[in-house]
Amino acid sequence: MRTILTPGPVEVDPRVLRVMSTPIVGQFDPAFTGIMNEVMEMLRALFKTKNRWAFPVDGTSRSGIEAMLCSVIKPGDVVLVPVYGRFGNLLIEICERYGATVEVIEQEWGKVFDPKEIIEAIDQVKPDIVALVHAETSTGRMQPLKEVGLACRENDILFIVDAVASIGGVDVRVDEWCIDGLIAGTQKCLSVPSGMAPLTYNERIEKRITERKRVERGIATEEELKQSNDQFIRSNYFDLSMLQDYWGPRRLNHHTEATSMLYALREGLRLVLAEGLEERFSRHQYHEKALILGLEAMGLELFGDASVKLPTVTCIRVPDGLDADAVRSMLLDLFGIEIASSFGPLHGKIWRIGTMGYSCRRENILAVLGALEAVLLFHGAPIHKGKALEAAITYYKD
Amino acid sequence: MRTILTPGPVEVDPRVLRVMSTPIVGQFDPAFTGIMNEVMEMLRALFKTKNRWAFPVDGTSRSGIEAMLCSVIKPGDVVLVPVYGRFGNLLIEICERYGATVEVIEQEWGKVFDPKEIIEAIDQVKPDIVALVHAETSTGRMQPLKEVGLACRENDILFIVDAVASIGGVDVRVDEWCIDGLIAGTQKCLSVPSGMAPLTYNERIEKRITERKRVERGIATEEELKQSNDQFIRSNYFDLSMLQDYWGPRRLNHHTEATSMLYALREGLRLVLAEGLEERFSRHQYHEKALILGLEAMGLELFGDASVKLPTVTCIRVPDGLDADAVRSMLLDLFGIEIASSFGPLHGKIWRIGTMGYSCRRENILAVLGALEAVLLFHGAPIHKGKALEAAITYYKD
Repeated sequence: MRTILTPGPVEVDPRVLRVMSTPIVGQFDPAFTGIMNEVMEMLRALFKTKNRWAFPVDGTSRSGIEAMLCSVIKPGDVVLVPVYGRFGNLLIEICERYGATVEVIEQEWGKVFDPKEIIEAIDQVKPDIVALVHAETSTGRMQPLKEVGLACRENDILFIVDAVASIGGVDVRVDEWCIDGLIAGTQKCLSVPSGMAPLTYNERIEKRITERKRVERGIATEEELKQSNDQFIRSNYFDLSMLQDYWGPRRLNHHTEATSMLYALREGLRLVLAEGLEERFSRHQYHEKALILGLEAMGLELFGDASVKLPTVTCIRVPDGLDADAVRSMLLDLFGIEIASSFGPLHGKIWRIGTMGYSCRRENILAVLGALEAVLLFHGAPIHKGKALEAAITYYKD
Repeated sequence: MRTILTPGPVEVDPRVLRVMSTPIVGQFDPAFTGIMNEVMEMLRALFKTKNRWAFPVDGTSRSGIEAMLCSVIKPGDVVLVPVYGRFGNLLIEICERYGATVEVIEQEWGKVFDPKEIIEAIDQVKPDIVALVHAETSTGRMQPLKEVGLACRENDILFIVDAVASIGGVDVRVDEWCIDGLIAGTQKCLSVPSGMAPLTYNERIEKRITERKRVERGIATEEELKQSNDQFIRSNYFDLSMLQDYWGPRRLNHHTEATSMLYALREGLRLVLAEGLEERFSRHQYHEKALILGLEAMGLELFGDASVKLPTVTCIRVPDGLDADAVRSMLLDLFGIEIASSFGPLHGKIWRIGTMGYSCRRENILAVLGALEAVLLFHGAPIHKGKALEAAITYYKD
């Protein structure tokens, strides 16, 4: 058993783990297609959208990102990607692979963009698509989206958002923020194992996808086979035009749905909606506060612009002279607690503590504060003894 | 609860279901990377290969097929695809999407190719790659591979095999049959839920993949970023050059491994190897025999060339005038037994009974024979009453 306090994958709710042991049923069994429809309905509530299409791709989170981007991007499309951490780079990467002309604006890691900067870049670049990360786990920052979404809609630009790390932990409003396509993750604030990537898209994206439609040989009708379409989507597995025929009433055979993962996703969504979205967001902020109070009482310094902090990820500057990875290893070896490092320029410079979904609870906050203090003292770090837990307990008792 | 006798997904072994409820650990936790290595080792045994690379892709079976083909195919490559059922068409589909020039030879559904025909086509077409389905669940036939493999090796052609439906149920010999790349499935003869696609490839394919290597921005070293490579693999998610760095000692972060599915795959492989590969293949043939005896005693006619029948799928001609789907629906509604239809030209013409993995056991054979007889009689089919179970019981008691 581990106490997992990384920004994903996090601990899975035991109720979700339990349903994964349910015997499977066939993918076109009415008992199963009923479950598929239920999942779609609950995803719409999670995403705060009226979109018809809301379903998971069978793969890890980045499979959903790739499905969305490769289904939308035609070679030569101009995509504007504002980057403020590692996962912005992933968006660039995928767009480039599918033949987009990528225009990048960069922000220092630890900050986010003023929406005006992005809108200025839109005016200059005149992109077909803007692709943006909502919550950067690599830096623990969250980018405001609404103004960017409105600007995209006004200029008839498609707005695609990676909300893998935020969904279920902080507020995401697909329709109100004019998001055309959004990709979520399971293994973070939903507390479902990795292996599915829920996504949603509206009619603006559906139109583009339908124009590129190509039904595969072997299941296409005679008429569909005759329609040649040189704009077809390059991936078969990620072709949303076929996936929507699988999730829609046509039930056109595409892949064999990952039954047990879908059971898990259904139970995870049920638990999220039963808790209540707003109550869940408040819970994440409540425990974030306890963690920050404890870390600051210990004398540790947080990393990044506090005004745009992602409530579910707390980044700590590694005190000078300390071996960041040795501290993490000792936490794991002796206490069974996992916290994260970061990527690229931040590796070894910060630790990241994730407080997401089922992992985000009082006992975990207290466990990591106590263990981190002990390990830091062992490594000779100049911290205040006994203060962290005192601060957290006082907060929780108030 | 269902008795699932389709050619996949099939019933999952209860011991596999149980491990899916195990709490997760982080993907770079030594406790987890140890499991990854174990899975690789067991896959090598399953595939009868010494290949270094044997690991699952996180997605359903066709994600593995796409990963293999898109990592190998460079635009303009000539791929020869011999088609004898629906899943040959899927290979064409994926090859075309990634820019290959596809040469097709076709065989009537229900038969397979004489290896000499494929070798003649190789001599004429001179392909870069031959892509071939080992076991066609759509028709219940199995294509001999060894002579084709040898011919490919002699002519320096890459030989890629879809063994999704055969692996774990019938013999597959990657090294002996000169298979360069092979894709397996979990939800058929391995009796693990859908959601992972184990594959293997040798140094011939590794060389090609490595030449196309592109490490993504955000985790690439400075030096890797400088190397430009316009032959890069078009998909990020399916890029085997990055996946092997994730499964290899570099442990380069790519996706977040689907923990619970990997637990399931490990347990599934453990059970397959504990039973013994040859014993498992014999078990499939043993129950196939009982099923065929029962169906024939009922007076039903089997579909397809019996000399190349796939032991794990038995196809039955629908008696004239019968509504094939109504029979299947009644089996499911009244008996909770699922059997399959087929695709395209065979839909409504045949039923398919899968006897794969954990589903392949005596009680299921007896259950489907009894139920099918009753449902056929209800629908007025001219069959012999009371003969099917008699034949099967006599066989089992001998």
